[in-house]
Amino acid sequence: MSSPSPTALVVSAHSADFVWRAGGAIALHSAKGVAVTVVCLSYGERGESAKLWKQSGMTLNRVKRDRQVEAEEAAVALGVSDIQFWDLGDYPIELEKESLFRLVDVYRKIRPAFMLTHSRLDPYNHDHPAVSDFAQNARIVAQAHGHNPSEAVIGAPQVLLFEPHQPEQCRWMPNVLLDIGEVWDRKKAAIECMKGQEHLWEYYTRVALQRGAQAARNSDKKITYGEAYEAVFPHVVGSLLP
Amino acid sequence: MSSPSPTALVVSAHSADFVWRAGGAIALHSAKGVAVTVVCLSYGERGESAKLWKQSGMTLNRVKRDRQVEAEEAAVALGVSDIQFWDLGDYPIELEKESLFRLVDVYRKIRPAFMLTHSRLDPYNHDHPAVSDFAQNARIVAQAHGHNPSEAVIGAPQVLLFEPHQPEQCRWMPNVLLDIGEVWDRKKAAIECMKGQEHLWEYYTRVALQRGAQAARNSDKKITYGEAYEAVFPHVVGSLLP
Amino acid sequence: MSSPSPTALVVSAHSADFVWRAGGAIALHSAKGVAVTVVCLSYGERGESAKLWKQSGMTLNRVKRDRQVEAEEAAVALGVSDIQFWDLGDYPIELEKESLFRLVDVYRKIRPAFMLTHSRLDPYNHDHPAVSDFAQNARIVAQAHGHNPSEAVIGAPQVLLFEPHQPEQCRWMPNVLLDIGEVWDRKKAAIECMKGQEHLWEYYTRVALQRGAQAARNSDKKITYGEAYEAVFPHVVGSLLP
Amino acid sequence: MSSPSPTALVVSAHSADFVWRAGGAIALHSAKGVAVTVVCLSYGERGESAKLWKQSGMTLNRVKRDRQVEAEEAAVALGVSDIQFWDLGDYPIELEKESLFRLVDVYRKIRPAFMLTHSRLDPYNHDHPAVSDFAQNARIVAQAHGHNPSEAVIGAPQVLLFEPHQPEQCRWMPNVLLDIGEVWDRKKAAIECMKGQEHLWEYYTRVALQRGAQAARNSDKKITYGEAYEAVFPHVVGSLLP
Amino acid sequence: MSSPSPTALVVSAHSADFVWRAGGAIALHSAKGVAVTVVCLSYGERGESAKLWKQSGMTLNRVKRDRQVEAEEAAVALGVSDIQFWDLGDYPIELEKESLFRLVDVYRKIRPAFMLTHSRLDPYNHDHPAVSDFAQNARIVAQAHGHNPSEAVIGAPQVLLFEPHQPEQCRWMPNVLLDIGEVWDRKKAAIECMKGQEHLWEYYTRVALQRGAQAARNSDKKITYGEAYEAVFPHVVGSLLP
Amino acid sequence: MSSPSPTALVVSAHSADFVWRAGGAIALHSAKGVAVTVVCLSYGERGESAKLWKQSGMTLNRVKRDRQVEAEEAAVALGVSDIQFWDLGDYPIELEKESLFRLVDVYRKIRPAFMLTHSRLDPYNHDHPAVSDFAQNARIVAQAHGHNPSEAVIGAPQVLLFEPHQPEQCRWMPNVLLDIGEVWDRKKAAIECMKGQEHLWEYYTRVALQRGAQAARNSDKKITYGEAYEAVFPHVVGSLLP
Repeated sequence: MSSPSPTALVVSAHSADFVWRAGGAIALHSAKGVAVTVVCLSYGERGESAKLWKQSGMTLNRVKRDRQVEAEEAAVALGVSDIQFWDLGDYPIELEKESLFRLVDVYRKIRPAFMLTHSRLDPYNHDHPAVSDFAQNARIVAQAHGHNPSEAVIGAPQVLLFEPHQPEQCRWMPNVLLDIGEVWDRKKAAIECMKGQEHLWEYYTRVALQRGAQAARNSDKKITYGEAYEAVFPHVVGSLLP
Repeated sequence: MSSPSPTALVVSAHSADFVWRAGGAIALHSAKGVAVTVVCLSYGERGESAKLWKQSGMTLNRVKRDRQVEAEEAAVALGVSDIQFWDLGDYPIELEKESLFRLVDVYRKIRPAFMLTHSRLDPYNHDHPAVSDFAQNARIVAQAHGHNPSEAVIGAPQVLLFEPHQPEQCRWMPNVLLDIGEVWDRKKAAIECMKGQEHLWEYYTRVALQRGAQAARNSDKKITYGEAYEAVFPHVVGSLLP
Repeated sequence: MSSPSPTALVVSAHSADFVWRAGGAIALHSAKGVAVTVVCLSYGERGESAKLWKQSGMTLNRVKRDRQVEAEEAAVALGVSDIQFWDLGDYPIELEKESLFRLVDVYRKIRPAFMLTHSRLDPYNHDHPAVSDFAQNARIVAQAHGHNPSEAVIGAPQVLLFEPHQPEQCRWMPNVLLDIGEVWDRKKAAIECMKGQEHLWEYYTRVALQRGAQAARNSDKKITYGEAYEAVFPHVVGSLLP
Repeated sequence: MSSPSPTALVVSAHSADFVWRAGGAIALHSAKGVAVTVVCLSYGERGESAKLWKQSGMTLNRVKRDRQVEAEEAAVALGVSDIQFWDLGDYPIELEKESLFRLVDVYRKIRPAFMLTHSRLDPYNHDHPAVSDFAQNARIVAQAHGHNPSEAVIGAPQVLLFEPHQPEQCRWMPNVLLDIGEVWDRKKAAIECMKGQEHLWEYYTRVALQRGAQAARNSDKKITYGEAYEAVFPHVVGSLLP
Repeated sequence: MSSPSPTALVVSAHSADFVWRAGGAIALHSAKGVAVTVVCLSYGERGESAKLWKQSGMTLNRVKRDRQVEAEEAAVALGVSDIQFWDLGDYPIELEKESLFRLVDVYRKIRPAFMLTHSRLDPYNHDHPAVSDFAQNARIVAQAHGHNPSEAVIGAPQVLLFEPHQPEQCRWMPNVLLDIGEVWDRKKAAIECMKGQEHLWEYYTRVALQRGAQAARNSDKKITYGEAYEAVFPHVVGSLLP
Repeated sequence: MSSPSPTALVVSAHSADFVWRAGGAIALHSAKGVAVTVVCLSYGERGESAKLWKQSGMTLNRVKRDRQVEAEEAAVALGVSDIQFWDLGDYPIELEKESLFRLVDVYRKIRPAFMLTHSRLDPYNHDHPAVSDFAQNARIVAQAHGHNPSEAVIGAPQVLLFEPHQPEQCRWMPNVLLDIGEVWDRKKAAIECMKGQEHLWEYYTRVALQRGAQAARNSDKKITYGEAYEAVFPHVVGSLLP
């Protein structure tokens, strides 16, 4: 009997965050056979849907529905295995204990090889750091033997923090650069599903090019498109060779 | 024709530093066929040879000679390919431009896959941060096309900073933990060559056990002995899987 | 038709904070025709009214009333346009979602050109950082198109953090020094309204003199009294000339 | 009439934390006649009792009971004057206002000369920083004249933060090293009461030896076993002599 | 008699740095009538001229000459008043006391309203931080009454640090964003003078677009191209209005 | 035979620094019988003597002489045991190896119980951080058994860093507050010997009052005048009681 394929978990505050910030990582690992689960805790319906709200007669439910459709299309483009919409509200997001335990259940079910979420600070966005704290808290509870003791606890998956919109202001420090060149077309397609935030398409294309150029500079390899992450925990390695 | 084996470079301020701080990494990679060059910029003859100086009739030359013998024995135990003693003095070490270019030559000759050296700050030791700055400077000059333009420049080898004696006071932050269990006996043998600093044997054995326990905690693997490093540059990776 | 005059918002944890920490900025801008709104989230009735509590027969309501009278007198001295007392309690302050949305309404109503509030950390005071986080959160919600979508969102007013009582311990770093010399007499008058905290009058007079001397040193201008702030966001400028 | 003996307060997130992290300080001061109160906010029954949960038929109540017995035995070994179990739950711990005021009452009753608690950050443990914040908040409320105004407020006891399990990852920086050599046997005995976490006995023995060696290095005294703390507030001294 | 026009000083380690890092600020202020002096301490002939060295028969003197021609053309495009080439060598740059005093003379002669130079740290470049330290040192000497006491000392011009190539790795934190939209065509023209580093043209175009988008976000103004700086000293202001 | 009295060492970049920054500590310990040696590495004749240079016909030698007279008078007021003027120049100060070894000799001769010097960073002053590095380097060499091996090495005296002129800008963080109330009149008398810098008298009087008020707040004691220091090394203690 073969061992199971690895999985990954992405915890996204709003339904578009996983696209801008982790679309490359998702598509790349999906292409390698990793089953990627994306949990969108809210739709970003109040705080990150400016364009939709400019349409006359817009309602909260229509915003949510449109945001969900966009996110689902992007998820398909990226090869996401499972995308979940928890509809917890935004600006501010409500992160109660019940949702914490629900996320713990996700960790235990999929047993991710790594987890991606938001940066620890962000003066431009109050939900992002709240979600980072929440998602890390759930990971810790999922490691606790006394939480639903009949279940198997998880190990110690690495946590990698997304690049925020204005990195230096968030005291976010990239220590992992991922080459996403082979899946850039998929990330681009996913970005273009985000019709409500067209003003960001070029911005995040340039982010990918800058991180790609930096990855090339740091590795002496030919890399064009990149994504940057801050790993929370030390890398445990068996060799220092690149 | 096969491609050449990888190499590594260790730049050690004093002749014993490479043993305490990087003995595991050296032995591990040596065992994998990596040719490791160790440059001991000084013997630590004035500042790190207290026990020798307590012998009556001791002279500077005898201290240097004894330190060299110890270091050579340790190098053998660890499988070092090439150990060099540059005798630049210590407390304070003298790091002139001529030595800088000599180190550039070493980089270009061996083209290391990674380089190990000291932490950026250390309030207990003035030579260690000076050497860290010097060794990083040499790496940058070795990348310069206009330095001895007939030679090939090097790429962008990772720089990993040794664990200093009192880590928090040095603002040193480990982000790489290396499992050295399979070569612990070799590091232990090398440590025991350092007869002049017997008071540190147990200290660095405990360091290895603590870093091993932390590596286990961070990876959910069974790891007993570890070494910790601070990588200066982001890791450029093709996958986030551990 | 003329464009409206600019406004400013000050969010003060306790009813005296705006005097010590921002009295100069308030008086100065008020004198320039800026309408300044001060929101006192609590009276500081439990934690910052030691002198009042030493009077026999003191009650919570009397403390609040006395604190309000003092703050109103100080507001008059400083030229505050609107001072509001929200009576949310102190030590610890209660910052619920309802109050958050109330503060959002204030932002949207006055549309401040800048906002002043507390530092992000303070080991001596638990309410101050809580209020800083709360006031910044409200600013972000006020920018959200989906929050009360019929209203106009606000732009991106700068947030400036007050000088805390013991600055270095709060990891607060001033990057803006404001010359308050021309309104010092008004700040002094406001300080002297704070009869319950007379022990602080001299302390904050000296703070003003020290920041004034530093402003002089940093600008080569003749400045005697100053206030210091940490701006959260980068300054967006059209010229680097002073 | 003699002045009362000094007291100390230890606020421990889980029932074993005070042993690993502050056992030396407790035993040392107890031996000097200081009455030490330990408040265990939870048992760590869910998150820090892995070994117990591996026993078949284990229940939450049995885990709590066993953890309490162990902690009480350790408290006896260390000479704790009063140990309290508040049973607030863990992973995540629930720190409500009622518990805050209960802890304020403890501060006011015992009037500690110093307080020990957890580090401000810990990516491996969500309860520890929450408790640090909570315990510091309670100290501040205990200083407020308007909280139960008939009671005497406390002064300004130093807060010292325990060494976390992986210090550098928690951005914890030791600035106080305590020589615990004369009570090491008592700390060791207390550690060995923690039968459910036998895998940590050696780890924390090595921590004590490393901190002892560092204390020796920093003082030029003969010290073997130590505990390290981060003092939150500046030391107020009448002399700089050691 | 009119007061003299303001001036600005740019201290560039290598002859192209002022173009990539400060071309917008130079063109913008030049267009406002500010006389901008650029001091190129070296040509970057060894470390930053890879493309030239790939030409056969290249010599150090030809590299320097070509670099100077490029820089002079860029200076014309930007409206630089005075560009100086000090030819101090690079990789590593030699910054002796004689050059320090020469730079002091420049400060005193032009009396700049602000000064631009490199970041304080850069693990990719050893000359940049050395020049930052040197240029700041010269500014301080230029303020000293006892240095050439017959000359007038300078005041306290702001120092603004250029954006380095990989900002987060340099612990550089932008706190000033300059709108360079109206001179972008001039910066672009200057960039395109740098024929030896064509691989950087797109990179720094994207930097300008990203900083422009961030300036727009931080100001709620329509801004397309920006440059970011870290101001070393607090801003001394007479008003907090934007 | 009685054991010798303790001693202290103050390393001052310019001849007035020890007065403003450490006058209280010197007077206090001198009054306790501690022999305090002050080494003034330069006179600050170029950079810190503005008032003298405004006198017509002033020469470098007269500035030095006047500065020495002032410093000697201040030293008498403070009870300094030995004041030395090394005349190494200023702006920039020249700190060669010969001076380093001369300072090592001072350490070994007096064997200080603690050492006071400048902060590690200072964007307003290039000599101060250079002296801090130099004085700490000398302390480390004085601990080296191989430096003049016939002499006894020193132990590990604490290093305490002076409060710089603009503390937050220097990333200086006070963790020791010294009550200097009982010697304030002596510090004031010493300050008033500094006739060339009368503009600083009030500034440093206010510093003393602010640090005194903070010391009171941190200790719940009645303290009026204070000096603040950043201790470089952890405090090694036998008790946590205040």
